[in-house]
Amino acid sequence: MRNLTLLTDLYELSMWNGYHILGKDKFNAVFDLFYRPQPGLELAVAAGLEQACEYINNLHFGEEEINYLKSLNVFDDGFLASLKDFKFSGDIYAVREGEIVFPYEPLLTVVAPLGEAQFVETALLTIINHQTLIATKAMRITQESHGGVAEFGLRRAQGPDAGIYGARAAVIGGCVSTSNVLAAKSFNLKPTGTMAHSWIMSFETELEAFRKYADIYPANTLLLVDTYDTLKSGIPNAITVFKELRAKGYTPVGIRLDSGDLAYLSKKARDMLDKAGFENAKIFGGGDIDEEILMSLHAQDAKIDVWGIGTKLITSFSIPSLGGVYKMAGIYDENGLLTPKIKLSDTQIKITNPGLKKTYRIYDKDGFAYADVIALENEKFNTEKPLTLTHPTERWKTATIAGYTMRSLQVQVFKNGVQVYRNPSVQEISAYHKARKGEFQDEYKRLINPHEYKVDLSDKLYALKQKLITR
Amino acid sequence: MRNLTLLTDLYELSMWNGYHILGKDKFNAVFDLFYRPQPGLELAVAAGLEQACEYINNLHFGEEEINYLKSLNVFDDGFLASLKDFKFSGDIYAVREGEIVFPYEPLLTVVAPLGEAQFVETALLTIINHQTLIATKAMRITQESHGGVAEFGLRRAQGPDAGIYGARAAVIGGCVSTSNVLAAKSFNLKPTGTMAHSWIMSFETELEAFRKYADIYPANTLLLVDTYDTLKSGIPNAITVFKELRAKGYTPVGIRLDSGDLAYLSKKARDMLDKAGFENAKIFGGGDIDEEILMSLHAQDAKIDVWGIGTKLITSFSIPSLGGVYKMAGIYDENGLLTPKIKLSDTQIKITNPGLKKTYRIYDKDGFAYADVIALENEKFNTEKPLTLTHPTERWKTATIAGYTMRSLQVQVFKNGVQVYRNPSVQEISAYHKARKGEFQDEYKRLINPHEYKVDLSDKLYALKQKLITR
Repeated sequence: MRNLTLLTDLYELSMWNGYHILGKDKFNAVFDLFYRPQPGLELAVAAGLEQACEYINNLHFGEEEINYLKSLNVFDDGFLASLKDFKFSGDIYAVREGEIVFPYEPLLTVVAPLGEAQFVETALLTIINHQTLIATKAMRITQESHGGVAEFGLRRAQGPDAGIYGARAAVIGGCVSTSNVLAAKSFNLKPTGTMAHSWIMSFETELEAFRKYADIYPANTLLLVDTYDTLKSGIPNAITVFKELRAKGYTPVGIRLDSGDLAYLSKKARDMLDKAGFENAKIFGGGDIDEEILMSLHAQDAKIDVWGIGTKLITSFSIPSLGGVYKMAGIYDENGLLTPKIKLSDTQIKITNPGLKKTYRIYDKDGFAYADVIALENEKFNTEKPLTLTHPTERWKTATIAGYTMRSLQVQVFKNGVQVYRNPSVQEISAYHKARKGEFQDEYKRLINPHEYKVDLSDKLYALKQKLITR
Repeated sequence: MRNLTLLTDLYELSMWNGYHILGKDKFNAVFDLFYRPQPGLELAVAAGLEQACEYINNLHFGEEEINYLKSLNVFDDGFLASLKDFKFSGDIYAVREGEIVFPYEPLLTVVAPLGEAQFVETALLTIINHQTLIATKAMRITQESHGGVAEFGLRRAQGPDAGIYGARAAVIGGCVSTSNVLAAKSFNLKPTGTMAHSWIMSFETELEAFRKYADIYPANTLLLVDTYDTLKSGIPNAITVFKELRAKGYTPVGIRLDSGDLAYLSKKARDMLDKAGFENAKIFGGGDIDEEILMSLHAQDAKIDVWGIGTKLITSFSIPSLGGVYKMAGIYDENGLLTPKIKLSDTQIKITNPGLKKTYRIYDKDGFAYADVIALENEKFNTEKPLTLTHPTERWKTATIAGYTMRSLQVQVFKNGVQVYRNPSVQEISAYHKARKGEFQDEYKRLINPHEYKVDLSDKLYALKQKLITR
């Protein structure tokens, strides 16, 4: 495993060094990792926790790392010496991967000595921001796909990790497979893929290329029909080969369209395949697709059964960054008492929520998610009594619910530096996501201008926030 | 080093397996890696070759990889056995990192047995697409920065590699430093950074936070002034500490603005610092900046000396994918003769250029780049005679230049599987880029609607292309 300990911004180390020198590093601090409201990211799919855990577990400064830091001539010798035996010693709480989350809800809360808690900021953000972004994009795309989606983006990913972990996140968010063999091997995903145009071009004729492919992969014959002319050459040649396959007792998988107008071509292709007696042959489609194009193609009744989606998914092209942040929410004093902290800003959405917090999801009698409440850690709720929720900033907006149930979104992942949570497999996470997504009414999941889901602050948290703002 | 051999799309392996079974793998094929026209990417900065070389040199199928492929039950046993001793055996030509390149120009040309040449497609695209994209974005941003740019994007990068190699590419494209310590260590870059808002928040007062920082880093005091109120609190407190520093014989570095209106605040800040006698204190600026915002801020005379640029740079936010492709240009037969290949398409820009090609840059008498010519490999040019260039599709557009010089853009990087090219250091590449960029007149480098630079096809290449299209 690569040593990612130095995968950090220099200022994390500069601050840690400072805290060490000043003796401020003895006390625990609380940091929350969350994201701020952004159109298109009204809700998100938490992902990346497993890699965040690996990062934390693997943190260590070897001789090479310490010598490098020494060479920068900015760090205190005592601080550098202390890094030799450094291991993360704090607690981490997190929402499970696959969970639906909303702006301001802590995806991760770190409680650790100030320097350590500060130090892990950058890499945790890199990992969680990336995978949460791609899982969310995959959820949006698969929601509009009317069929399976294979993740096909490796060649357009922002480097190897973006391809590997992007594929993982895409499956968490709803994709059924990936073209990326290393990702498939690493996370036990289903690898898929057939042929490129170069396969066709390497033969004298398209028909020969199809025939040879069917000879080699008779049980897995999916033919790319758009190299020369989709309707006049590609599909007729595919049908010829499908008939030969059928005569040998095999069932052809189908055809793949990778260019041209997919609504027009897929309807024509469906018709041609059906008329030739291949009603079960599937039509695979791809080529610069995202959720908005899917909506538009389906509005015109495109007949695509399975999508291969690359660039727009693996880079989250329309919004290529989640913009998650990691903010201090409090510092413990020598008596173990927490001093809550707030970051003020002229921009209201940039003001943070102070204190050690928990997020609860409130369910109505039918089991649908009704609202989330961010509360202080030690608050108690009596589910026997009706609960009144108040809008986090527009406090005149209230809503009362009776007969509700509630669930805490966070689990403890690290305790005193030791991982106390088992990371589920990607398949388990994907199933978990599907179940949790099903708890939300459609209006919250609409892609454009969705109904605003209530994420409220408890009265106690609200009062604390106001007190700190006023001060 | 991680084994990235399986960092590939499944279909590359399916095709290779097929070529192996059919005995088509004995002959060399030619593939070109290039990108297609895209607004905002009228010109690009080639980057990623060093990592592409590492990938090629490190290709090997271990027992683990072969067992995994066997478990998929789609590959021929003879093919799997052949992978055991596989090493890349072909030739690779490439443009140097830092070179200015244009659409259709091969950034990389691979000449290798068909299966191998096909197999390396995906990872080469992942590596080159990513770094070329970020180097290009860095060029665009630094061109409008009117001062140094530090790459600050790790936390928003699409995973660890995107942060590490993105920082490398950013420095190639013109950034002076990075916040990313691992990238700095890996590529001998300059790491930079100061403090986060959390440093300020961990003290009782902003003044105390500044003072303690100056105590620890007296020679490196750059203070973040926007935690509470930039003009009323941040800058006055910074000036107080700067005066104390000066009294101790130190020179303060400056202040950092990370939010608010940077044009307004930087002019006010400059004024306040100057009046307090700190004319040399620098103003660092950041916060969601890209090249268009830089143009707008400079139009209003913003007084920022150094920029810290994160999200928009490290993800190339406005265009998060280069869209490079890898297309077959020919196959050699048993007599060693090349059969040129072309990929047709209804869309003219998707038609490929056939054959083994070379790209030349034509310079005018003043040493400025005048045009590029993509030619067949064995074409000769007589620079003593005037050269007539013809537009690649609009053939009535010609231009004649006399007294020109020319330079081949490609170098041979691999010969029979052995690397024959020394990868320069990032510093060398960055200097090379700066020099090459200087060869282009400003009108080609304008960010919005630049003058179109001539990239022409030689008459022979044009004739070959037309012959293949007609056939």
